[in-house]
Amino acid sequence: MTLGVIGLGSMGYGAAVSALRRGVPAWGLDTRTEARDRFAAEGGRATDSLEELAAACDAVVVLVVNAAQTEQLLFGDAAAPGLATLLKPGAVVICSATVDPALPPLWEARLAERGLHLIDGPVSGGAKKAADGQMTVMASGTPAAFAAADAALNAIAGKVYRLGDRAGIGSTVKMVNQHLAGVHIAAACEAMALGLRAGADGRQLYEVICNSAGMSWMFQNRVPHILDGDYTPLSSVNIFVKDLGIVLDAARKLQFPLPLAAAAHQLYLATAAAGHGHEDDAAVVKFYAALAGLDLPEPKQP
Amino acid sequence: MTLGVIGLGSMGYGAAVSALRRGVPAWGLDTRTEARDRFAAEGGRATDSLEELAAACDAVVVLVVNAAQTEQLLFGDAAAPGLATLLKPGAVVICSATVDPALPPLWEARLAERGLHLIDGPVSGGAKKAADGQMTVMASGTPAAFAAADAALNAIAGKVYRLGDRAGIGSTVKMVNQHLAGVHIAAACEAMALGLRAGADGRQLYEVICNSAGMSWMFQNRVPHILDGDYTPLSSVNIFVKDLGIVLDAARKLQFPLPLAAAAHQLYLATAAAGHGHEDDAAVVKFYAALAGLDLPEPKQP
Repeated sequence: MTLGVIGLGSMGYGAAVSALRRGVPAWGLDTRTEARDRFAAEGGRATDSLEELAAACDAVVVLVVNAAQTEQLLFGDAAAPGLATLLKPGAVVICSATVDPALPPLWEARLAERGLHLIDGPVSGGAKKAADGQMTVMASGTPAAFAAADAALNAIAGKVYRLGDRAGIGSTVKMVNQHLAGVHIAAACEAMALGLRAGADGRQLYEVICNSAGMSWMFQNRVPHILDGDYTPLSSVNIFVKDLGIVLDAARKLQFPLPLAAAAHQLYLATAAAGHGHEDDAAVVKFYAALAGLDLPEPKQP
Repeated sequence: MTLGVIGLGSMGYGAAVSALRRGVPAWGLDTRTEARDRFAAEGGRATDSLEELAAACDAVVVLVVNAAQTEQLLFGDAAAPGLATLLKPGAVVICSATVDPALPPLWEARLAERGLHLIDGPVSGGAKKAADGQMTVMASGTPAAFAAADAALNAIAGKVYRLGDRAGIGSTVKMVNQHLAGVHIAAACEAMALGLRAGADGRQLYEVICNSAGMSWMFQNRVPHILDGDYTPLSSVNIFVKDLGIVLDAARKLQFPLPLAAAAHQLYLATAAAGHGHEDDAAVVKFYAALAGLDLPEPKQP
């Protein structure tokens, strides 16, 4: 089995390098020369040609930013053929961007016409877990798709949830995760800002909440950025402008109201509008600080 | 040291019995005969007379429902004196209801005029932890108040956070915890309803989210109630109508906007308005189910 990874960003690069480390030959495609050079230096086959990658690979992980990029890679356009045309029959594509759950079933059907399989497999865990081969895949697809993808999934992931036998369920579970993650970060920022405004000590607040019923994974993970005054983007405000946007669009199609996610989305938009879109998502706290004239912790001087 | 516990509800009863178990003589006051009888059967001194309890005790924990009941007990009225009049100078009152953080400093000042101490000490952990002597106290107060309260706090709690040397900080930290807990329960209900509506399997969703970035303590704790269709109230919808109400009132006084907590509060109100106020707070999911014609998991037949 030869693996292809399209998109050598933080998650894709980690996945591709993990596969190499586990003895799986891997191709990596990226438009950026420096990403390709870095991957080649690790022993990977780097290319900027979709044709070349598709000709060499049995399983391709598509780890790009959004649905539009995924569709371009899958189906191409008049000027350039996509994976649907280029891959050998029997090959599998694992689509891992966070997308509207309505899309993967359409992709699955179109790929099936060409004898190709799809795994609807969004990922989570962040760059560090990806680099350690420990990212999580929320996967669904036909049994034949899983059979074709098994070796590839094992090469890149620490945990693969098999969530159903059709595309769409993986993206649904990921959507629910992003809903909660997005609301929890915004809630952490609102609550910390309130506590600081009311005179509590930030670090004590953090310690107590981490050990109380108000705890969330995101509170635990993001509040230290606020306490350290460090908004270096591990995941940016703009990512949640996008991801909660996907959640709201998908729910609108289902005619399902999401008052909390909608309120949280407005907070990310407000924070991006104030010029913090490329900062860490904990910068939502700056929206509250600006509204209420609150002084946030300053970064430590080196 | 003799301890008094006022309010033998789920938290107060557990606190009082834990003290007995640790060899601390304890009085318990409750208006309900059955609560007093139950405490007396455990070896406690039960009474419905505030005078009798105050004459016997050096430290009194007030574990009643809200600020109004706490103030009545502390300061009484024309017809009945309160603890401020009845306790011996040097005694300490530990006020543990969830209240507006602006109130405990006022209470502290009035008690100090009578030579009495106050610990602003809201609790968390639920009935089971209280019964095991393991509840958490988020405490603030003067060093003299802590000196007077130390033995009492150790008799009832597993963990005492000392959050500052003046009343108000304990309640501020508790307010932030309730903010997050309230938003997280509502978010868990919104996200689970969305996932079920989109066709995901509830139990798989629960397992994946509990191991992903969307996890919260409340998601982990409350979603099983939804999956089991069991809304037996461990903590009711009405509690968060009250507690998020306190958070919003306190923030309004600070002129501090809380768009997420305000949106979550409306969801608890809507759920209570639909007749579910006395059910478990996970019943917020029923609001979404009713809006969107969603079938929720049914309780198992015995």
